[in-house]
Amino acid sequence: MESTIKSTLVQSLGESNGEFVSGQRIAEIMGCSRTAVWKHIEELRQEGYVVEAVRKKGYRIMSSPDTVSAIEIQNGLKTKKLGQHIIHYDTIDSTQKIAHQLVQEGAPEGTMVISEEQTIGRGRLTRNWYSPKYTGIWMSIILRPNLPPVKAPQFTLITAVAVAKAITEVTGLEAEIKWPNDILIQGRKVTGILTELVAESDRINAIIIGIGMNVNQTVEDFPEELKTVATSLLIEGNEPSKRSELVKEILIGLEKYYALYMTEGFYPIKLLWESYSISIGKQVIARTFNETIEGTALGITDDGVLRLQDKNNKIHKIYSADIEMK
Amino acid sequence: MESTIKSTLVQSLGESNGEFVSGQRIAEIMGCSRTAVWKHIEELRQEGYVVEAVRKKGYRIMSSPDTVSAIEIQNGLKTKKLGQHIIHYDTIDSTQKIAHQLVQEGAPEGTMVISEEQTIGRGRLTRNWYSPKYTGIWMSIILRPNLPPVKAPQFTLITAVAVAKAITEVTGLEAEIKWPNDILIQGRKVTGILTELVAESDRINAIIIGIGMNVNQTVEDFPEELKTVATSLLIEGNEPSKRSELVKEILIGLEKYYALYMTEGFYPIKLLWESYSISIGKQVIARTFNETIEGTALGITDDGVLRLQDKNNKIHKIYSADIEMK
Repeated sequence: MESTIKSTLVQSLGESNGEFVSGQRIAEIMGCSRTAVWKHIEELRQEGYVVEAVRKKGYRIMSSPDTVSAIEIQNGLKTKKLGQHIIHYDTIDSTQKIAHQLVQEGAPEGTMVISEEQTIGRGRLTRNWYSPKYTGIWMSIILRPNLPPVKAPQFTLITAVAVAKAITEVTGLEAEIKWPNDILIQGRKVTGILTELVAESDRINAIIIGIGMNVNQTVEDFPEELKTVATSLLIEGNEPSKRSELVKEILIGLEKYYALYMTEGFYPIKLLWESYSISIGKQVIARTFNETIEGTALGITDDGVLRLQDKNNKIHKIYSADIEMK
Repeated sequence: MESTIKSTLVQSLGESNGEFVSGQRIAEIMGCSRTAVWKHIEELRQEGYVVEAVRKKGYRIMSSPDTVSAIEIQNGLKTKKLGQHIIHYDTIDSTQKIAHQLVQEGAPEGTMVISEEQTIGRGRLTRNWYSPKYTGIWMSIILRPNLPPVKAPQFTLITAVAVAKAITEVTGLEAEIKWPNDILIQGRKVTGILTELVAESDRINAIIIGIGMNVNQTVEDFPEELKTVATSLLIEGNEPSKRSELVKEILIGLEKYYALYMTEGFYPIKLLWESYSISIGKQVIARTFNETIEGTALGITDDGVLRLQDKNNKIHKIYSADIEMK
């Protein structure tokens, strides 16, 4: 089904908030015959929409399929920039890779790439990210802040706050942030954030924020090596979530915190981040490229660097590490 | 002409260093008949090679066309990594854009994109770069140093030294560096360098170094608005240069200084850079995003930042600016 026709049809049905919309009215909005409307409704049904049709009343959408298409995400989305351009794939190697290509082609701020599945999903430090079909959120968002490159790491923290808040809003589950880029529920990873930078020496060209969220996987869906460390919102909350709702909340939150950061600086973000953090005040083991440091996580600096106090009271600044909670 | 055949043919002729190579010998190397050799030689001639053919002696190349194809650049190139993978275009929008795509596809360090012409050549701060056909060097080189993103600006200075040295080696002209990224001859710009960074928060994924060099343009070739500020090696030296020779020297120098930097750090690069610099010790006007500062350029810091002393003896650190010599 051609996507602008589909979009107009879904919007015309959505406008009425659950009331019936007459075939005549839809035909007027779409500029086509009532027979054509009937055909388009049939196509919608084939794509997983449940549409009720009642003689003399018209049509109404009873439920939409759980896709993360542009139509589903943009339906009722109240953002100014984020998610206003969405490129949706049924399957793709990596949304992050596509986002990099779009940056080179001059894609505007807020452009987003999302796929039902990634075949070579990317994690931090060129690790893989398991991204099976229809059960998670695999997306990349392009921001273009007018800032020096040194500010880029702060965007991981801004995003972490937006994601943790979105999870709590949609599912009621308590999401926690493990420095620098993991979102956990009950100690298991439910979301990873990958912040990539494209820059000249003194100026950010783009920040590409990759978000991978486990939503509707069951325990059996995870490969053996991930079962003890990873979880999904379904496993933790015992009910499936609508992925497009989560995406909308992430976009709304990220737009809000990004604006806050650009006007007020990092301080309010730092406070929010610390309120979600499980690392702060705890004993942790930090494995960096060169060494392993045990100590108490004191907090983060204004640059998003982790401050760790070892048993000799020496304070270490951790720029990059894998963190294990003791 | 198919490029691997051409490459084998040019190499088999090049091996002999100006001596004749028999048709029989070439046929053996290429694994084809002597009639096929004759046909391939004809094709070479059509592409601008001058090939002498003498009965009972064989063939020899008298001159090659001035292209910057992989064959021309790699013929006799003594580098380990840089330029070992070359993607050559007759025309392309931007070599920098292609290099970004190659980075996303995992291109190895040293991969290089070069085009005879750019239709949308890119300069610093998204300015355009005038890149007409066959007269200049329009190239992008991918490096993958295992370093934090904060080191990226130093690569502009490493490249500037390699480019200035290559110009002097090939043409004998005295090239000077104007901070941060311009190479001048007699006060006019002959080369610009654009360093772009692709990184995670704490780790460089790739540095893409764009080099645009005016080589064989005449004064008439430049658009009116560039005539007073830009120049070419031909204009300054009164003779044309072989572009592939310049590219080779740039690659050799860049590989050398990059290795020096990775083992010894920035200090030796800084000394080299200062030896080519025209800004240091001079009165300059620095126009930054926010302000205009006049003063004496004292030198650069280990981060490649310009130190500028104003008339009240206050020292300013300049991260990004357009510099005008007073």
